[in-house]
Order: sequence, then C-alpha cells, then structure tokens
Amino acid sequence: MIIRDLAVTPIAFRDAPLLNAAGLHEPLALRTIVQLVVDGGVVGIGEGRGGTAVAARLEAVRDAVVGKNIFDLAGIERAVVERLGGGQDTSIVFSAIDVACHDAQGKVLGIPVVELLGGRARDAVPYSAYLFYKLAGHLGVEPDAWGEALDPAGIVRQARALIDRYGFESIKLKAGVFPPEQEVAAVRALAEAFPGYPLRIDPNGAWTVDTARRVAHELCDVLEYFEDPVLTIDGMAEVRARTGLPLATNMCVVAFEDIAEAVRKDAVQIILGDHHYWGGLRHTRELGAICSTFGIGLSMHSNSHLGVSLAAMTHVAAATPSLTFACDTHYPWNRDDDVIAPGAIEIVDGAVAVPTSPGLGVELDHDALERQHRVYLESALRERDDAGYMRRHDPGFVARLPRW
Amino acid sequence: MIIRDLAVTPIAFRDAPLLNAAGLHEPLALRTIVQLVVDGGVVGIGEGRGGTAVAARLEAVRDAVVGKNIFDLAGIERAVVERLGGGQDTSIVFSAIDVACHDAQGKVLGIPVVELLGGRARDAVPYSAYLFYKLAGHLGVEPDAWGEALDPAGIVRQARALIDRYGFESIKLKAGVFPPEQEVAAVRALAEAFPGYPLRIDPNGAWTVDTARRVAHELCDVLEYFEDPVLTIDGMAEVRARTGLPLATNMCVVAFEDIAEAVRKDAVQIILGDHHYWGGLRHTRELGAICSTFGIGLSMHSNSHLGVSLAAMTHVAAATPSLTFACDTHYPWNRDDDVIAPGAIEIVDGAVAVPTSPGLGVELDHDALERQHRVYLESALRERDDAGYMRRHDPGFVARLPRW
Repeated sequence: MIIRDLAVTPIAFRDAPLLNAAGLHEPLALRTIVQLVVDGGVVGIGEGRGGTAVAARLEAVRDAVVGKNIFDLAGIERAVVERLGGGQDTSIVFSAIDVACHDAQGKVLGIPVVELLGGRARDAVPYSAYLFYKLAGHLGVEPDAWGEALDPAGIVRQARALIDRYGFESIKLKAGVFPPEQEVAAVRALAEAFPGYPLRIDPNGAWTVDTARRVAHELCDVLEYFEDPVLTIDGMAEVRARTGLPLATNMCVVAFEDIAEAVRKDAVQIILGDHHYWGGLRHTRELGAICSTFGIGLSMHSNSHLGVSLAAMTHVAAATPSLTFACDTHYPWNRDDDVIAPGAIEIVDGAVAVPTSPGLGVELDHDALERQHRVYLESALRERDDAGYMRRHDPGFVARLPRW
Repeated sequence: MIIRDLAVTPIAFRDAPLLNAAGLHEPLALRTIVQLVVDGGVVGIGEGRGGTAVAARLEAVRDAVVGKNIFDLAGIERAVVERLGGGQDTSIVFSAIDVACHDAQGKVLGIPVVELLGGRARDAVPYSAYLFYKLAGHLGVEPDAWGEALDPAGIVRQARALIDRYGFESIKLKAGVFPPEQEVAAVRALAEAFPGYPLRIDPNGAWTVDTARRVAHELCDVLEYFEDPVLTIDGMAEVRARTGLPLATNMCVVAFEDIAEAVRKDAVQIILGDHHYWGGLRHTRELGAICSTFGIGLSMHSNSHLGVSLAAMTHVAAATPSLTFACDTHYPWNRDDDVIAPGAIEIVDGAVAVPTSPGLGVELDHDALERQHRVYLESALRERDDAGYMRRHDPGFVARLPRW
C-alpha cells in the first residue's frame, strides 16, 4: 500500500457570472485533480483548489509523498509540512493528498470513506441552495440559462429554479454586493416566497459593525444564522454581543489556531468547516469534535468545485455527528463540466446520498479530465481574479472590506 | 465484517498492596476482556474496567452490537448509548467494544491499529515509573518481592527497582496517603536520587487549596506537573491562579462536557486522557486535537490493567501528536498475570514499541484467560473497594477528600 506516483492535473471548467464582495466569477473556475498511484494498481483520487501555485506546490511534494504508505497520514502530513512549511497554503496541498489517500484506503479495503472516518452519523447529507447575485451572462456573450438576478425578484426566481431542480430545503444568499437595504429586501422576499426555510446571508465581511447591527435587527426573525457580517474575531464578537444573533464564519476562524480566541471572545457560534483548508478529512472530523465540545455549531463552506470534492465533503459530513446544518455547495453552478464517471452526482431532496461503494465512491472520467485540462491549458487563467474581471464590468470597482 | 457474537469475560489478577487517598489496593484487581467474533473467523479483542456491573452492562448491549459492521463505530456507539443512556458508565462499556472493533478492523485489513488512527506520530510510547506508597505485603501474608515503601527511602528504592528493570525516564508518585510534608520529602528524595528526571505528584484531590499552595511552593522547582492537588475545576483554577504551576487532571475533567469550563477558568494545563472512559480510541484522538487547539497538554491516565489495554493505550498514544508526556501505566504491578500470548509486553528504555502486526498486535492466551476468569469466579470480589480493604488495615480509615 505504498504510493508509487502522484499525478497532478490542473483543470478549468465553466462558471457563471456570480457576484460577491470580491468581484465577479470569471467564465472559468480552476481546480486541481490529484491521482495517487498505489501498489497493486489502485489509484486514489482527490480534488483541491486550482491555479498554478497550488499545482506547483503539489508537484513540489511529490517525491516526499512517493514511497509513503497510504495509511500513514500523519507521516505524509509531516513530510508535506517539512517541505512547504506550515500555514493554510500547505494545508490546502495536504488536503488534496489526504482525500486521495482516503480514497485509496477505501478502495484497498473495499469500504467507503465514511467508514474510515468512524461510520455514518447520517445516510444523506443535506446541502443548501446557494444563491448569488448574477449577471444575465458573461461579459460580451449571450445570457445563460440561469438568467439575471440583480434584485429580490431575480433572487427569488433563482431560488425557485434551484429548489425545483434539486429540492433544497435551506437557502443561503451570497451578499456584500449591493447596498445592505437591497440585500435585506432580497432576504425578506425569500422569507415570503419560501416560508419556513432556514435562511442565511453572507456578505463576506463587507459590512461595518453598525451596518451588521442594523441588518441583524431587520432580519433577526428570519435568519438561521448570520455569516461573516464583519471581518475579524473582535468585530464578530462585537456584533454577537450587540445582537445576540448566531454568527457563522469561514473568514475569521480558518485554522485550529484561531479557535481558542474565538471561543474566549464568544465571537462565533457556528464554524463553516471545509476539509480543503482544515487539513483534510480527519482534521475536519476533529474540528467537529472541538465544535461539539465547546457548544459551537458546525456547517460547511464551499468554493467552486466538482464531484470529487462533493463526494469527499459528503463523506466527512456524514461522519461528523455535530455537523447539523445543511452544507454549502457551488456544485449546481459547475456540475455540467464534471470530470467524474458516469456523470455528475445527483442532489435529490436537497441532499446527496452517502456513497456506499469503496473509497469516495466516484471515479474519474479520463476523457472529461483531459478535456478540462485542455480548457485550462488553452485559457489564459492561472489564478482566480474576481476583482480584475469585475473591473471589466465596472471599471471603478475596488474590493474594499468593509464597504458599507 | 459483521459482528456475530460478543463474549464478555470478567477476570481477576494479582495486585500489590498499594496505598492511595481512597485506601489500599486489594489482593486482586478486576478487568473485563471482550471478544468480538466477526465474519470470517476474525476475533477482535478489547479490555475494559472490571467487576460485575461493567460485565452486566456489556452483556446488556450484546444484542444491540451483534449484527453491526465493525467499521460502523458511530452506529455501534449510538446503539450502546440508546441501550444504556449516556454518561461515563456507558462510555466505559463502549470503549471496550471500540477497542475490539479496532482490533478486528486491523486484523481484517492487515494493518496495525495506529494506522487506523491516522498513523504514527512516534514509533515507541514512553511511560513513567508509577510509584506507590506500599505495604510490605498483603494483610496476613508474607512480604512480596517489591518490599515496603512507606517513607522517602522506600519510595526511592521502589523507583530504583522500576527504573533498573524498565528504564523509565520519568517518575510519578501516587500521593494523598501521608501528611503532605512526608510526601514532599519523598519527592525531594526522588529529585536528589534521579536528577533531571521529570517528576509528578498526584494526591487525587486529597489537599485543600491552601495545602496545595504550600506543596507547590516547596516543589515548584522539581515538578513537571502537579496532578489533581485539589478537587473541582474551581479549586484547580484557584491553585493555578495562585501558584502558576501546570496542573494536570484525570478527576475534574473526565468527559468532553467538562472541557469548556476548565478552559474558561484556566483550571487545567494538562489533561490525562484515558480511552477507557473518554469513549474509545477515536474519541481520545479527538481529545488530543482539542488539547492542542487550546494549548492544553495531554498525558495519559491509567488504572490497574493488563496487556490488551497497554497495547490499545500505546496505539492511541502513538497516533496522537500532542501526547508529549510519558503516559501513566500500572502495568509493572500487574503484568505477571497477563492474559496475552506469548507473554507480557516488554517495556524497554521506559517505552513500549508500537506494535507493527495487524490490529492491536497482541493475542489472547486462552489458557491464561480461563485461569484468570477462574480466579475471578473463585474470589468473592465483585467490585473494587480500596476503602473497605484499608479499614482491615486501619479500622479508623475514612476516604475523605480533601483530607489535609
């Protein structure tokens, strides 16, 4: 069960013109697929963040990983940290390898990854409808099938489309795009159109504490939680103290080192975990244990991603008893270009069934992988740049936080 | 990989007349061996606390466990909790089964348990020399080979014997037996006889805050940490605030529910984990993650135990990077009656090498198991009663905490 090779494939795939506080999603999103070739012909697969820097860091650790046993996750992590130093960039690299090791372990053993992580707390993992303000189409091209969503009616229409298609039972609005009163109106419209649905709003730290307090006052009766209304642990603690609303974050608590201060200051009531930067599947399980020990809720963050990541997210969420909120996922926005066989994972009744076949339970479609790798090679895109793309739409745009 | 049967074998084995704040160790100590019979003839073994109550609770969950998959630890835990309710008694029962499941998993997969827990952070696990005040022999019988240890010279002699035989490189004194000044003198004698050895003293909460402050003042230059000088989280917080010494506990933080308060009050700087009551191996790994996240040290607690437990302790300690202190073990006091084949585990240079064979890496000696089960059946002993036995030695003894 020794790793004999690590293949790193950067890919690009179509994305929609989605707006956020940092700018506008470009026509292509980036990810990296890793394949760990193990003794006996088993290949473990993983998916991680995209772009040349991540791919280069993965290439840089290849010879430290090759020769290691797929079960020696601690040793592989040490080797990666030794090579790259600590920090989130390293965690992102290790995570992709960790997922591939888990996939290989499961395949070798004939058991699904969820069982390697302690077994199922649930048989299906609920995800939320992830709404975005959105242009009708990418700059200079025809409108896409999703249509425009720049006002409450457009947001409700988008929610309806996602819920009709996937059965989502909770809703998250990516905010921080328009003045807060417009975004409050959108959440109010969602509350009216989808009575009883848990609602979340996430301006990515675009607001001041005063603005966050005002929004909290206006939405406290309909929000399940309030995600990153402001930047920094101290800012969150102030909003919490003044509003009493449960606050969630994937911005001010992003590593184990951040947790103690956040707990001490009661800054965060829900952490949005993400195995892609919390150091892989085992460490995300540990995050779950920490959260339940300290009475902190656990939900899950998402970046643009494809099916290998969705499978990994689903396994670790299923194995984490304290992960009681519907998880975020961008998958509906990106699944048409997925690189897995026999096709994209289905979201039914707002949830993904936990795979029961060995490993992650998904396989690469090598033709699709090659196709999306060519898209990457033929594009000029090497790192995500929402702000730069936004300036082509709005030349005066500055990604300033807080903005309102 | 389905569990087909759960065999529960209560055993008793010889113990030495060791003194502690609760009284005196009886001539026999109690444990329970569990054997999980799995499809394909694999048998997973575990060891847990002894006595009739634990055995009865294990019997009571048999039909809830039989039929479950050995990899579905979450499901097995849920079933045990459903049957018995929550709390430490349930955690103790689940732990024995959890260890047996891990052993079975490792045997099925051909890998050692440490690899199921994320891989080795170390290849050998250091243990400390666990010193006890001790009578020369059990009541009414000849002195044993260990000899008496009722004063500093006796304690130093015992330390020398343990260190000569096992190579221990740190020392723990079980205290709370004699007036504190005598125990301070014993630690001072150890410091003189074993310069540079990390020393610990553990009176099991026998002291008041004022006594603990006085002892701390007298021993602060030689103690690695100060274990349970007083009872309760608030008491520990007061000792910590007034002395600045690192405090360790296995008495006031014994479950995940206790941690948040202890952190908030800075009551405890080191937690002595113990998979036997922290809910098995996975949850003990989670305890490690919590400790490192909150800057709390991690060491390991021990009760009287045999080799199946020592193997399990060694695997989980090896897989827990933050467990940086030498672990406690009673094993030298009990190993002669071990029920494993081909004989007791060796402690060399103060450490146990992490087993490399599948599962726990130890096997039951079925003749020895039967022998120690008969010892249990033929003894009158059904629950541990240090205080009752102590009163046969000292009729006026009352196990009152705090005592000084």
